[in-house]
Amino acid sequence: MKIKHLAALLGACLSIGTAFAQAKPESQIEYRKSAMTVTARSFGVLGAMAKGDIPFNKEVATRHANLLANLSDLPLSAGAFGPGTDKGAPTKADPKVFSEPEKFKAAYEKFTAATHGLPAAAGDLATLKVAVADLGKTCKGCHDDYRMK
Amino acid sequence: MKIKHLAALLGACLSIGTAFAQAKPESQIEYRKSAMTVTARSFGVLGAMAKGDIPFNKEVATRHANLLANLSDLPLSAGAFGPGTDKGAPTKADPKVFSEPEKFKAAYEKFTAATHGLPAAAGDLATLKVAVADLGKTCKGCHDDYRMK
Repeated sequence: MKIKHLAALLGACLSIGTAFAQAKPESQIEYRKSAMTVTARSFGVLGAMAKGDIPFNKEVATRHANLLANLSDLPLSAGAFGPGTDKGAPTKADPKVFSEPEKFKAAYEKFTAATHGLPAAAGDLATLKVAVADLGKTCKGCHDDYRMK
Repeated sequence: MKIKHLAALLGACLSIGTAFAQAKPESQIEYRKSAMTVTARSFGVLGAMAKGDIPFNKEVATRHANLLANLSDLPLSAGAFGPGTDKGAPTKADPKVFSEPEKFKAAYEKFTAATHGLPAAAGDLATLKVAVADLGKTCKGCHDDYRMK
């Protein structure tokens, strides 16, 4: 595929353009919601293994662990919770995300740090259980303060 | 966190339950749309590097490559394009997704195969350009037939 065709394809595929930090608020809101939807399902699979609801499968666990480890930082680093993204589309982001951004960032980074530990833990059910419990605490910790009911 | 608390957390976090293949159609539609939104942004970053719109950064490219490689199979394998998911929420999935599922699966698997090549290619701009062009062809190929305008 020629680069000019790739450019056309990108233009067709992306409504947000390449300057992601300058994407419209509704695009940022959509992206962060999408990231959380994807996150929830992968966390669900890992949690189900941890709980014994589904059999532990090292390959599947590793895939979801790597997905979470690579995805988690992106909404924050891409500016999807940045100034101006408190409106533009329905959102459960609490106003404190925007009034205390440094504290929000600290809570969010507990989440990302927990996801970074998942790949190493995913190869064994005992270590996975610990990592999943730790991760779940960071979800709850951030949601308690920064996601509206 | 005790396992019982984790169970409660999972129940609170997930509306779809642990039997993902039996999730409601609207949940599956939401999941696959979310996966594509996340995919589009990562593809956008890699494409922007391939085009020279943003500087090549090996660490960033590797992150997005690994994200795509681990995410791409999930909507199909999780049944998010399965029987009954042609309705329940707005969707751009073409009716042919459901009338010719084996052909759709073949097209979708060209996409997943292309994502699996990304991590190895992401360390070098020249190899990344080739891998991104190949991936873009699979996006277009599947969308031409299976995504409504």
